[in-house]
Amino acid sequence: MFIKIDFESEMPIYEQLRRQIIMGIAKGALEKGEQLPSVRQLAEDIGINLHTVNKTYNVLKEEGYLVIDRRKGAMVRDIMPKANKEYSEHLQAEMEYIIANSYCRGLTKEDFLKLCGEIYDKLEKY
Amino acid sequence: MFIKIDFESEMPIYEQLRRQIIMGIAKGALEKGEQLPSVRQLAEDIGINLHTVNKTYNVLKEEGYLVIDRRKGAMVRDIMPKANKEYSEHLQAEMEYIIANSYCRGLTKEDFLKLCGEIYDKLEKY
Repeated sequence: MFIKIDFESEMPIYEQLRRQIIMGIAKGALEKGEQLPSVRQLAEDIGINLHTVNKTYNVLKEEGYLVIDRRKGAMVRDIMPKANKEYSEHLQAEMEYIIANSYCRGLTKEDFLKLCGEIYDKLEKY
Repeated sequence: MFIKIDFESEMPIYEQLRRQIIMGIAKGALEKGEQLPSVRQLAEDIGINLHTVNKTYNVLKEEGYLVIDRRKGAMVRDIMPKANKEYSEHLQAEMEYIIANSYCRGLTKEDFLKLCGEIYDKLEKY
C-alpha cells in the first residue's frame, strides 16, 4: 500500500495515516488478515516518528479495524467494525455540516449525490 | 440562532462554532445580510473566550461567509462563497475518506445516498 503524508497539511500526521489505512482497506489494497508493516518499518519508510505510527495503529485497533498480535504486530481484522449507534450519530453530524457547506456554495442535491455515488462505484469494483 | 458547544468534544470550540454558523446559514436561521452578535456578546452567551469567537468570525470572513464591518460587526455575506477548485478538491478527499469508512462498516451505496438525500431535503424546505 502506498502511503503519502502531506507535511504541510493542517491535519495531524497520525490522522492522515489513519485515513489512508481505512481507505486502503476499503479499496482492497489491504486485505482482511493482512499483516501491516512493523511500527519501526512504516515510520522509517514514511519518515515520521515511531510514536505517530503507534498512535495510528492503536486508534485503529480501538475502532475495530486492526488487531495487534504480540508476535506478528498489526493486522487487518477479519471482521470489520459495524456502523453502530455512535458511528451513525457521528456520520449524521458530519454529513449535516458537509452538506450545509456544499449547499451554501451552490452544489445541488443531484451534484452531491452524483459525487458520492461515483466514489462508491469506484470502491465496489474491488 | 441557537449555538450549542460540546465542551467535551475533541473538536476545537472555534470549529464547532464555525460549523454551526454555516449550518445556520444553510437552514436560513441566519439570513443573508443579517448581523451576528458582537464578539463580546456571543462569547458571554455561550460562555467561551472572546478570542475563540474572534477566530471563528475571522475564519468565516476568509472563507467568504461573513463580512466584518467596523461599525456593525460581523454580518452574513449577501453572496455566498463558491465551490471553487480548492473547495471541490477538499470535498472530494473528505468524501473519499468518509465513504471508505462507511463502506467498510457495511453501509451500502443506497443507504449512504439516502442519508445524504434526506439531509439535503431538510435544507431545501427552508
